[in-house]
Amino acid sequence: MFQEVLRDMVERTDGAIASLLMGFDGIPVDSYNTAADALNVESVGSEYGAVLGQIKQAANMLELGSAQEVSVQAANMTTVIRLLNDEYFVALALRPAGNVGKARYLLRLRAPELLQALS
Amino acid sequence: MFQEVLRDMVERTDGAIASLLMGFDGIPVDSYNTAADALNVESVGSEYGAVLGQIKQAANMLELGSAQEVSVQAANMTTVIRLLNDEYFVALALRPAGNVGKARYLLRLRAPELLQALS
Repeated sequence: MFQEVLRDMVERTDGAIASLLMGFDGIPVDSYNTAADALNVESVGSEYGAVLGQIKQAANMLELGSAQEVSVQAANMTTVIRLLNDEYFVALALRPAGNVGKARYLLRLRAPELLQALS
Repeated sequence: MFQEVLRDMVERTDGAIASLLMGFDGIPVDSYNTAADALNVESVGSEYGAVLGQIKQAANMLELGSAQEVSVQAANMTTVIRLLNDEYFVALALRPAGNVGKARYLLRLRAPELLQALS
């Protein structure tokens, strides 16, 4: 079920390369990767996941409410991350010209399904 | 000059609350705030700035190229941050329904001016 959602999000987003469902402890639940020269999506998730934990804490401390989404645009890749609950997040990696708006929309749309299947 | 750019970005972005130009060391250069109940925009910048340093390192390590922009959507506030160089970043804080696309556009548009004035 995870694989189906992860693949569908990548296929429906222009410029998407990979998707990943991961725990904040850096342990992947499942991932989907289109890149022949396999981008190490799990390394990316694990590094960003560690930072995400700190963003969650900062947002709470600053009374901005719970963090819901983080996106990072680097020269060679854009990563959009949706926080599912206190344990898991789901991420989409895109080429720089990829459709970030669509990525954000699909992550928000499919989050409840993933969350339900995780619990 | 900083004040003029910071104010202009807030006024031209629907839902924007405040803007901030800050060093990665957490020391503000200048800020502009519309909120009467003054959101502590410098605290937000300082907390997020610390995380930003780690995102920069992670993106480099993962060979994703240099980090250019980070946005964080929390329940009560969205923050869009544009990295100017190795020392400074500029950020726009918006209400949850604010126009994130316009914020990203204006930050990208005005970044060269800010960068030039800083050096």
